[in-house]
Amino acid sequence: MVYISVIGSGDSSPEISELAYVVGKLLGKEGAILVCGGLGGVMDAAAKGAKEAGGLTVGILPGNNRAGASFFLDVVIPTGIGYARNALVVQAGDAVIAVGGESGTLSEIGFALKLGKPVVGLKTWQLCKQGKETGHIVQAASAKDAVEKAMALAQKSA
Amino acid sequence: MVYISVIGSGDSSPEISELAYVVGKLLGKEGAILVCGGLGGVMDAAAKGAKEAGGLTVGILPGNNRAGASFFLDVVIPTGIGYARNALVVQAGDAVIAVGGESGTLSEIGFALKLGKPVVGLKTWQLCKQGKETGHIVQAASAKDAVEKAMALAQKSA
Amino acid sequence: MVYISVIGSGDSSPEISELAYVVGKLLGKEGAILVCGGLGGVMDAAAKGAKEAGGLTVGILPGNNRAGASFFLDVVIPTGIGYARNALVVQAGDAVIAVGGESGTLSEIGFALKLGKPVVGLKTWQLCKQGKETGHIVQAASAKDAVEKAMALAQKSA
Amino acid sequence: MVYISVIGSGDSSPEISELAYVVGKLLGKEGAILVCGGLGGVMDAAAKGAKEAGGLTVGILPGNNRAGASFFLDVVIPTGIGYARNALVVQAGDAVIAVGGESGTLSEIGFALKLGKPVVGLKTWQLCKQGKETGHIVQAASAKDAVEKAMALAQKSA
Repeated sequence: MVYISVIGSGDSSPEISELAYVVGKLLGKEGAILVCGGLGGVMDAAAKGAKEAGGLTVGILPGNNRAGASFFLDVVIPTGIGYARNALVVQAGDAVIAVGGESGTLSEIGFALKLGKPVVGLKTWQLCKQGKETGHIVQAASAKDAVEKAMALAQKSA
Repeated sequence: MVYISVIGSGDSSPEISELAYVVGKLLGKEGAILVCGGLGGVMDAAAKGAKEAGGLTVGILPGNNRAGASFFLDVVIPTGIGYARNALVVQAGDAVIAVGGESGTLSEIGFALKLGKPVVGLKTWQLCKQGKETGHIVQAASAKDAVEKAMALAQKSA
Repeated sequence: MVYISVIGSGDSSPEISELAYVVGKLLGKEGAILVCGGLGGVMDAAAKGAKEAGGLTVGILPGNNRAGASFFLDVVIPTGIGYARNALVVQAGDAVIAVGGESGTLSEIGFALKLGKPVVGLKTWQLCKQGKETGHIVQAASAKDAVEKAMALAQKSA
Repeated sequence: MVYISVIGSGDSSPEISELAYVVGKLLGKEGAILVCGGLGGVMDAAAKGAKEAGGLTVGILPGNNRAGASFFLDVVIPTGIGYARNALVVQAGDAVIAVGGESGTLSEIGFALKLGKPVVGLKTWQLCKQGKETGHIVQAASAKDAVEKAMALAQKSA
């Protein structure tokens, strides 16, 4: 099985949520297990897409119970470890797709890179040093492009 | 959905493994999601039973990748947080069934009680204070008894 | 340096708190670093004793800020990982002293044993299997006895 | 007490290590408690500086024992939770100073921002969106500037 972690804000714009939904749908069609942080925004939209396409969806929550979990999850894991659960969300994936995203997403991108996981970005952070973008995030042009890149990179890394 | 965590040693005797297998099988028939620590022994046996009965199985691993995971898991979550993952294993369940078990299981029983989760025991630890058994663990007489008690208690606690 | 973790309830009786205070005082005199969960009850009493004896005291908290920390701590570490921090409290010690204690303490005893740390008990849990006490906890007769046993075992395990 | 977390690579260049050392020294003079990840490179250099200036130093390690800890730490906390300990390192600080840094540092910056902690940067990552640097990291021109900014921001946030 291929596991793909989809990360992004719990409070995303309609545009970003729509992108996450399409990413989820395409991952579901590919037969990937979708892992996310289990809450709203990008997490909920991606899970909805994957579920509609028949995929298996997993949410790893910061709290110590299942309250607030997206309705589109087959498996809900309440961790009780707060934002440290971000490390677990990316660790579960063979590759990571970041859709939009704020500071929590940034922590997940950092973790994924630390763990050597490929990170594909869609309208997300750009990482720079001395004014130049580093090559750490594989930037994608569309949801389709992001999923294709993530699936290819996941198979290499798994 | 009802989630039941099955805990026990990764290196269990044939007798204890057989008990865990029957517990898993009965939980699968009940339609519960089985959560375990994802490794060998009781975890593997319970997952095997649940899978054969058509249940959904989840393993929450201590390591930072899926190496060593039971083959009978639908979803494998590598946490990378070592034995602190024991807290997550019991947190994911609406009730906990301990089958046999050594010190790791003891930490899980402690966590479950701290979180107010019902703990059903099958040939496991007995907790005493001043020479008398406390009532913290609901001792079961058989795999069937353990599953019935856990399902009833889970529905109350969920 | 020798690190000793003192564990016990955050809501202890006067008798148990007094014992924890004496344990802390003796550890401070021995020059051990006292590690605890950083909150009230046994944790606060042990830290107070150690501080009065000139010892260094460390509290590892479940929450994500320093609120609620004992006043007798030199170093406060807010973990934000909830009760999973129990694993960290015992991991930091070369030996563990349990004074009284409820379910959280039980989880810490389990963790300590899993990690191969010596556990000395003072009016705490008794662990039994098939009606007989196992030898996992080294039961102590007094605060002085507990500290002597813990220091001796810590030096062996460090 | 003011706690300042100093983050950066465990394998830093001589130039970056020297900066971290000066940052540590100035923090020690200010009487701040220095928190770091407890290993080599920037962590070790900052702890050395702080220790020489009479400061109190704390290292929060990823492993489950004290192996590999910097010699310049007063308190060593082995967490056993792997890179998820990065969340704890920044959580312990009232402000964070990033000196250089690779992907682990990036995860820490993300966590700090998520938790609302001020982040001061010294030759570290620049965060951009749509080609423009965001204002999330307060860039400093020198070690002295970084410490002054961090101390001022810490007092506001504490």
